[in-house]
Amino acid sequence: MTKVTAQMSVSLDGFYAGPRHSGEAADWMESAEAAGFFRVTRWVTDAMAWRERQGFAGGEQSVSSRVVAESFEAAGAYVMGRNMADGGEVPWGDEPPFRAPVFVVTRRPRETLVRQGGTSFTYVTDGIASAVEQARAAARGKNVAVAGGGTLLRQVLRAGLLDELELHIVPTVLGTGMRLLDADLDLAEKEAIELTPTRVIHTPEVTHIRYTVNGRAALVLDDRGSGSGVEAR
Amino acid sequence: MTKVTAQMSVSLDGFYAGPRHSGEAADWMESAEAAGFFRVTRWVTDAMAWRERQGFAGGEQSVSSRVVAESFEAAGAYVMGRNMADGGEVPWGDEPPFRAPVFVVTRRPRETLVRQGGTSFTYVTDGIASAVEQARAAARGKNVAVAGGGTLLRQVLRAGLLDELELHIVPTVLGTGMRLLDADLDLAEKEAIELTPTRVIHTPEVTHIRYTVNGRAALVLDDRGSGSGVEAR
Repeated sequence: MTKVTAQMSVSLDGFYAGPRHSGEAADWMESAEAAGFFRVTRWVTDAMAWRERQGFAGGEQSVSSRVVAESFEAAGAYVMGRNMADGGEVPWGDEPPFRAPVFVVTRRPRETLVRQGGTSFTYVTDGIASAVEQARAAARGKNVAVAGGGTLLRQVLRAGLLDELELHIVPTVLGTGMRLLDADLDLAEKEAIELTPTRVIHTPEVTHIRYTVNGRAALVLDDRGSGSGVEAR
Repeated sequence: MTKVTAQMSVSLDGFYAGPRHSGEAADWMESAEAAGFFRVTRWVTDAMAWRERQGFAGGEQSVSSRVVAESFEAAGAYVMGRNMADGGEVPWGDEPPFRAPVFVVTRRPRETLVRQGGTSFTYVTDGIASAVEQARAAARGKNVAVAGGGTLLRQVLRAGLLDELELHIVPTVLGTGMRLLDADLDLAEKEAIELTPTRVIHTPEVTHIRYTVNGRAALVLDDRGSGSGVEAR
């Protein structure tokens, strides 16, 4: 059955990149945003399975590489934000790494772009739920992967459309940056989004934790700790 | 050899409690702060090893209970913030759960308070480093545990005094609250605190990850991802 999944590499303090770069685009590689981004994705760029999809040589055939390979394999279609699609269009070249239909959430209508190796980019202008539905129909029973960035992932989570989230928790504290689970999730007071971890794979470089998203729930007062009633004052 | 350790239960988005309660202390149990706190510590209050130390009946003899038992056992002395010490003084009663010397970082001098079962509270007015040193001397070769709260833990981490951090990551997204790894860690641009995960224990309720703290490091540009030079533009 098709699941809507997402995954993201984050620092131990929850950032997927350094603070947003506000200067010239050409200076991005030297920015603090990029420095943070490359730190949290280092485990990916070291992984053979990722490098092979990018057409790069080398890399490690590691446990983490298998996690990457598995993610690519499980995805029958992708949903992507406009920033990521725009930024990737040139570097991904004629044969992008997705090898599956990609549905780009955007406000600007554009004709579908068909690339080699099975990748196509379809521009969806009527919202995230529509993009997810179109991706679901195109996924042929495989999963719909929300490919990012962080803003899109939060929107999908907030809208209750996400079935599974895999976080790759990298053992670094950045202190500041672009936070994945930011405050714009529209949670009410004493309300949470509950998940259940279903798989944990750990290496010295990164801890991969896969969660099923159970949905929103009220935080009810829980006095199991008291026993004697001391704390239930 | 004595290590300086800390542990904390946090939500998936990094909060150890809900947003700080600003009303009457008597209303704390009904606050959003408390609701978040009880959610992220639920696994602890369910653990038999914790309940036994509090003098409460029941609880689960689970993997997580063994994690709690092990933490208590490893600690030869504690360092604690004033808020936690003040808040606990009455509920902990005559026989507090620590069974070891506790060094409270405070500005108010006070005579050492000796309780039953091996717990004492020594009030240290000349700073965190001094409290850690006094605890180290008192720990008899066991570990010094930084018992919280979050502000103290960050101060110890920021000062480079922390050897080991164990996070108990609870699969809930709170959206807002008191964040453990907040921005006041005094990190420079393109600087991070690097850690290495040394042990991961996972259950459906919580993922326990223990980290060795390696210290501060510059985030250097890392173009291993490029291979072809495409990204090193």
